[in-house]
Amino acid sequence: MSSLSPALAELPADIVRTAPDDLAPHLTDWRGQKTGSADALLLPRSTAEVVAIVEWAGRHGVGLVPQGGNTGLVGGGVPEPAPHGPAVILSLRRMNAIESIDPAGLVLVAGAGAILANVHEAAEQAGCRFPLSLGAKGSATIGGLVSTNAGGVQVLRHGTMRALVLGLEAVLPDGSVLDQLSALRKDNSGYDLKQLLIGAEGTLGVVTRVALRLSPALVARSTGWVGLDSPEQALAVLKRLRAEAGETVESFELIAAEALELTLHHMPALKSPLQGKHRYHVLIELGGPSDMLESVLMAAIEAGEAEDAAIAASDAQAEAMWLIRETIPEAEKRDGGSIKNDISVAVADIPAFHAEAVQMLEAAYPGTRPFVFGHLGDGNLHWNILPPPGAQPLWLKQEGEQARHLLHDLIAQHQGSISAEHGIGTLKAAELARLGNPAKLAAMRAIKSALDPQGIMNPAKLFA
Amino acid sequence: MSSLSPALAELPADIVRTAPDDLAPHLTDWRGQKTGSADALLLPRSTAEVVAIVEWAGRHGVGLVPQGGNTGLVGGGVPEPAPHGPAVILSLRRMNAIESIDPAGLVLVAGAGAILANVHEAAEQAGCRFPLSLGAKGSATIGGLVSTNAGGVQVLRHGTMRALVLGLEAVLPDGSVLDQLSALRKDNSGYDLKQLLIGAEGTLGVVTRVALRLSPALVARSTGWVGLDSPEQALAVLKRLRAEAGETVESFELIAAEALELTLHHMPALKSPLQGKHRYHVLIELGGPSDMLESVLMAAIEAGEAEDAAIAASDAQAEAMWLIRETIPEAEKRDGGSIKNDISVAVADIPAFHAEAVQMLEAAYPGTRPFVFGHLGDGNLHWNILPPPGAQPLWLKQEGEQARHLLHDLIAQHQGSISAEHGIGTLKAAELARLGNPAKLAAMRAIKSALDPQGIMNPAKLFA
Repeated sequence: MSSLSPALAELPADIVRTAPDDLAPHLTDWRGQKTGSADALLLPRSTAEVVAIVEWAGRHGVGLVPQGGNTGLVGGGVPEPAPHGPAVILSLRRMNAIESIDPAGLVLVAGAGAILANVHEAAEQAGCRFPLSLGAKGSATIGGLVSTNAGGVQVLRHGTMRALVLGLEAVLPDGSVLDQLSALRKDNSGYDLKQLLIGAEGTLGVVTRVALRLSPALVARSTGWVGLDSPEQALAVLKRLRAEAGETVESFELIAAEALELTLHHMPALKSPLQGKHRYHVLIELGGPSDMLESVLMAAIEAGEAEDAAIAASDAQAEAMWLIRETIPEAEKRDGGSIKNDISVAVADIPAFHAEAVQMLEAAYPGTRPFVFGHLGDGNLHWNILPPPGAQPLWLKQEGEQARHLLHDLIAQHQGSISAEHGIGTLKAAELARLGNPAKLAAMRAIKSALDPQGIMNPAKLFA
Repeated sequence: MSSLSPALAELPADIVRTAPDDLAPHLTDWRGQKTGSADALLLPRSTAEVVAIVEWAGRHGVGLVPQGGNTGLVGGGVPEPAPHGPAVILSLRRMNAIESIDPAGLVLVAGAGAILANVHEAAEQAGCRFPLSLGAKGSATIGGLVSTNAGGVQVLRHGTMRALVLGLEAVLPDGSVLDQLSALRKDNSGYDLKQLLIGAEGTLGVVTRVALRLSPALVARSTGWVGLDSPEQALAVLKRLRAEAGETVESFELIAAEALELTLHHMPALKSPLQGKHRYHVLIELGGPSDMLESVLMAAIEAGEAEDAAIAASDAQAEAMWLIRETIPEAEKRDGGSIKNDISVAVADIPAFHAEAVQMLEAAYPGTRPFVFGHLGDGNLHWNILPPPGAQPLWLKQEGEQARHLLHDLIAQHQGSISAEHGIGTLKAAELARLGNPAKLAAMRAIKSALDPQGIMNPAKLFA
């Protein structure tokens, strides 16, 4: 019997789970690196039930940990163990309805528990598309994507989740319902509070329903894979592509040789799209015809900006290229893990930053291997660090953490971000406190105290 | 001698203006309907001087009223007269440098005092464009556009100012500098406080520098004018256009016959692009070739969705079409003014809302004339109301205000916004308090108190 049992009895029995088997999948993060504890899993079916839960948590001083698909990478959805007080996990997976689709107005309204892949499918069936995608699309929920301001592989053209949220409904820490769901393309009536909820990692309230911006279906689509020698060359190809294709460049993903090779090693079913070896690869998605992509890549090769290129000749080939990109994190996990980083700098600054980081790492931690891939066109790389071959398991927690700090110091020098898309959670809270702008940190604390004076919303996250 | 004179003497003399002639242009709004009073005009040259001013205001309890180009329509930049305590106007017009342009990264950094037209020009010279434009572009400043989350005629494709701000620097009410200027396309390290500053109308701090998102130069551009019979038909044309042209539809502006006729009446140099009479007109800008636009409009006429259409055959013809659209507010002003409204509803709901509003107005205030134009593709119309012919000047302040309330009630029924792009200022503060979501209003007040406990930033704005 948990000490919370009498309090939990106040809630409708059919939204409370306390069996260890029910809780277990929610207590450990996707990477298997962080386990917390909670007294219950709550499964509300409506906004009214979320209100009841939030009011209940306020009365009893219980921490509420909202969790979507539990695919986060910074521990934001994992309940902190004691001494942070009693906590329960709040999953909105029952609130997963696609409530409406308006293909003319390009708006889709969904419950926060709706899974991304299902939103993709619903949009496609209505002749539109929802242009945010990432590897975890089969599990990630809309509420989680909003609360973490998720990015993914189409940010270059369409922006992060923030750019795709037209409206939302949320339950604030005092139990009031912030009703900003109406899918207005323009609304300047006071502070845009939905922007505060987006990316707040559940610390300011619970997102319950979301109105999403759809895009028209693509008239044409083409996918290509390029082998080249450096991030500089990759930026030159991006520039060339944009000069020809304007804003129709959907994705421009960099994959360093180490990341490709390790992925092919752990996933023998996958094959490299190119025959030869290259130090860097770029995966390109264009919202335009493949002959345009082909002619740009031919010209890039002639200009010495690229070494080789392949254009997908079918949807199946395009999907095979994307599967490599999307499988990289899983391969990394199978390899024993890494120091995962998620940095961004100004796009033009990527080559200089990357060169400095490689040099710094080699000097400070000989034998470590940069494992770099990500969204070059957004200035956002997953600049991960693999332990030296044969390193002890503890390496990640000791030297690895120090290496991360060095990398973050370099990021600060480049005025970049230590978390471009993954968020802060618990993993980066201390680093944010160490490196963040003091005015920003003070204002964040003031807002958190003003809206959640009891601190019931996702305790111990974001703030160190 | 103002009672603030001793305090003002603490500031560098060359940033303080107190002569009535210097202050006069800043005390009355663009429409000439609202006049306030202030003890001084402050003209800082740097962020450090803004910090000094904010700290000074805090010490002396002086209200700071940030003002950009003074082209706002809701009184947000006009200092409130007594009894709101002493106030000074803060103009950043000296901080107008275009600090940097990165055509590869598509980023332009400017001081908050930079004028929109100058930003347009700088972007064009670098082979890019800044895709936000509005009639007041020759006066409106970047800081004002950010603080009001300005919209304009290209929101359909590019979003409001919020979507175009990559970073900003602001001085918070405690004098600390929020440094979020670094032009990162992705940054999930804590609450995105710049989003709070955007559209806060200067009530939470002073925006000092901004990093703007540029777009690649348009590969092709075409402009067309359509005559048709109803908003329903206009939406049908928009749907048809999007099916052909995807996301390259830049602007889709509705102009009702009354707005066109009154504009042509007051501006004899302008000519209607079409020969015949039509109940509604649409101005279209496409980021694509004119033959595509022409074939879509021909098909629309054949399908009975449009009555007539003209395609601009030259830049001069395109500019002439745009000049009509941009001159409407000036014509309205010359006509003696109107009840200006700035509403939005879901795009698909526009025809129903419009029909109900016409009917309601005719029933409640016979003889008044709807004067409707605006951004149909965004669901945002300037649904203005002209007094009945021969009405007394007081009509606007009396019956006119009541008519506005009726319209806002209808907006609330349609879950729309009473301010889509103009903001709240003082003009709509009472209406926001009357009709806004209570959870939102309470959270706004909590945030305002948390960040500006003394209430020095733009007093009496936004909150009734």
